[in-house]
Amino acid sequence: MTDKNELTRVESFSDAVFAIAGTLLVLELKVPIFESGLSRGDVWKKLAEGWPSYLAFLLSFGTILIIWVNHHFAIRLLNKISKSFLYANGFLLLTITLIPFPTAVLAKYIDTKYASTAVVFYSLACLLINLAFLVWWAAMHRPVYLIKPEVTKARVKGILSQLWMGVGIYIFTTLLSFWFPVIGIVLVIAVDILWITMSILEREMKKEVSV
Amino acid sequence: MTDKNELTRVESFSDAVFAIAGTLLVLELKVPIFESGLSRGDVWKKLAEGWPSYLAFLLSFGTILIIWVNHHFAIRLLNKISKSFLYANGFLLLTITLIPFPTAVLAKYIDTKYASTAVVFYSLACLLINLAFLVWWAAMHRPVYLIKPEVTKARVKGILSQLWMGVGIYIFTTLLSFWFPVIGIVLVIAVDILWITMSILEREMKKEVSV
Amino acid sequence: MTDKNELTRVESFSDAVFAIAGTLLVLELKVPIFESGLSRGDVWKKLAEGWPSYLAFLLSFGTILIIWVNHHFAIRLLNKISKSFLYANGFLLLTITLIPFPTAVLAKYIDTKYASTAVVFYSLACLLINLAFLVWWAAMHRPVYLIKPEVTKARVKGILSQLWMGVGIYIFTTLLSFWFPVIGIVLVIAVDILWITMSILEREMKKEVSV
Amino acid sequence: MTDKNELTRVESFSDAVFAIAGTLLVLELKVPIFESGLSRGDVWKKLAEGWPSYLAFLLSFGTILIIWVNHHFAIRLLNKISKSFLYANGFLLLTITLIPFPTAVLAKYIDTKYASTAVVFYSLACLLINLAFLVWWAAMHRPVYLIKPEVTKARVKGILSQLWMGVGIYIFTTLLSFWFPVIGIVLVIAVDILWITMSILEREMKKEVSV
Repeated sequence: MTDKNELTRVESFSDAVFAIAGTLLVLELKVPIFESGLSRGDVWKKLAEGWPSYLAFLLSFGTILIIWVNHHFAIRLLNKISKSFLYANGFLLLTITLIPFPTAVLAKYIDTKYASTAVVFYSLACLLINLAFLVWWAAMHRPVYLIKPEVTKARVKGILSQLWMGVGIYIFTTLLSFWFPVIGIVLVIAVDILWITMSILEREMKKEVSV
Repeated sequence: MTDKNELTRVESFSDAVFAIAGTLLVLELKVPIFESGLSRGDVWKKLAEGWPSYLAFLLSFGTILIIWVNHHFAIRLLNKISKSFLYANGFLLLTITLIPFPTAVLAKYIDTKYASTAVVFYSLACLLINLAFLVWWAAMHRPVYLIKPEVTKARVKGILSQLWMGVGIYIFTTLLSFWFPVIGIVLVIAVDILWITMSILEREMKKEVSV
Repeated sequence: MTDKNELTRVESFSDAVFAIAGTLLVLELKVPIFESGLSRGDVWKKLAEGWPSYLAFLLSFGTILIIWVNHHFAIRLLNKISKSFLYANGFLLLTITLIPFPTAVLAKYIDTKYASTAVVFYSLACLLINLAFLVWWAAMHRPVYLIKPEVTKARVKGILSQLWMGVGIYIFTTLLSFWFPVIGIVLVIAVDILWITMSILEREMKKEVSV
Repeated sequence: MTDKNELTRVESFSDAVFAIAGTLLVLELKVPIFESGLSRGDVWKKLAEGWPSYLAFLLSFGTILIIWVNHHFAIRLLNKISKSFLYANGFLLLTITLIPFPTAVLAKYIDTKYASTAVVFYSLACLLINLAFLVWWAAMHRPVYLIKPEVTKARVKGILSQLWMGVGIYIFTTLLSFWFPVIGIVLVIAVDILWITMSILEREMKKEVSV
């Protein structure tokens, strides 16, 4: 089996975890109980009251999607694997597998006076994923250098500084959310939206980015 | 990694989401409680009383199957990907991941006086998926044209008009279901059955369709 | 995309459904409640009291495994696909996706006076899967003949008669279980064990079976 | 279809089961209930009180990861499959699919006076997986020898003695945990950590290990 095949297997295992973690999120959407004697308007209001769950679902699904796209493009930079990398990738997957849990906490408490704790917890989870990405990135360099020789140092550095920026952003939103949870969660959402937009624009502008 | 491989990865990630969303539907089938002192006939009646869940399961599984087949044949028309397409595909997957939720609402309330809301909600979900397919289709054209040059304009237009027809149908069933939920859900089911039948016949008649 | 690739995609989609249906079975194993004041022996007895769930898990996982192996070897006989086959395969997957539901019914009631209904229900599910296999098999022949020309008529007939035998067996166990549920479920289990044993022996004896 | 392809299919089916079993673990993490009138400190304490669940999640995810890596490297030693091997692999997957159950038992009772039973139960599950690995390993040798001729006898023996060592360790931790559950679970965790560390070091030191 060639290293090419091994990379493919790492990718498809990771993809399966991404797909399952994303799909399990729907289990958090609970069917509301419609008591007898509700008017049609009341029933729709009941459905609409599930907005914290819908919002949390959208946010976490979007996050997993972003991670999937980035994981995908990062893997394309490699030409071999090491056992350290396999375990670092496993640790990254572990943090992604966890997403449904802070999502459920967020959905349950964003609309209560415990919103601050819920947002801090969610933001910490985003921070953890970013840290796992840093470990993953480190495992591409040590003990064996797994990156294709033709990938420029500038590109590698560019990705690394993006990762550190992510760490910085989530430390900031975590701290901020202790006092201003609404601003905190809006920022977390905005970062996701900004990331998708930038990522689409960049890709279409600089075709040569792909290796 | 070639664009061919990238398409394969998009396909297999999508397939995983389809497979999980379809399989999670079974979690909505709840084992009925048989109190002591039931006759054999009562017990079977209890099992039969789960028909709204069985119906909703069949309908949603059928829908996911149709989406899978169509997604599969549409992907075959492409010869490359763009980041916009990746995110549009992700949005499409998001709407499919959601299916278990309106399915559960339908199963719980189709047999109650809230049937109208349940069917409207389900029909809206079908509409959302169709709209996501339109976005997905648009992302195949812009900003980068991803479709193989040998695919005729007529074929591309044919698919597009099918998508718009789907949007029209689900707007109609949604509106109708506010007043006539039973007719609404029967129509939604009929559209699925019709679609499968037409799709099988068309394929066997016009072999040259496949690219 | 070649027909070879299409077969691969059908296989991997089916595999994902098999894997998920098998893995979801574990969700039926509920952690027992240990009230305070139990002795160590009582606690282990509580765990052991979950035997109907463990048995149902083993049986259904074994069944899915057998289906996976047979699906796998049948797909190897094909050299192309048709839309009818895709939908017939989808219907087969639907019946497999359902397995966790009769499994849960069996686990809950095998040890009660409703055992008969539970076993009949489970046996009916096995029958349904076998019928779906017959439809699937038919779709390999019509409207397009998908089987490789080098596969002998004798081999095709052999598989078909195995399928009909399966249908016969499960009709028998279903009817029998109305009156003798314990014998019924023992037969269902025995058929699975026999099947695995025969399948291993046959394969090792007649190497030329593989195409 | 070549034996190469068959091995790939076995791998990807197994991977799907590993990925799902790992991801389902998150469903055991329950959102705590925050009653009204809790201070911020209380709320965080409530979240922290979930530590047995977090620990059990980490441990089981780590275990699945180790199994995935080892399964992966063992499959690389093969150049064909047999039906016996397919069923032995299925039995191995069955034991892995079960992991969420002892994990849930461990999470629920590690912090109670029933800790001993919970750890023994978990340790037994690890033992079962190791025994399934032995069966799997045996099925690589009999009735058909599936291992590539270029794999040295020494390497095959090395893996076998590792498996027996694992059996020995888990028999020991199981027995020990009847009286000293805390030491038992610490040992189980330590074995996992040690295994990952050794595996990373070995791989990086003896490059020639990979076949």
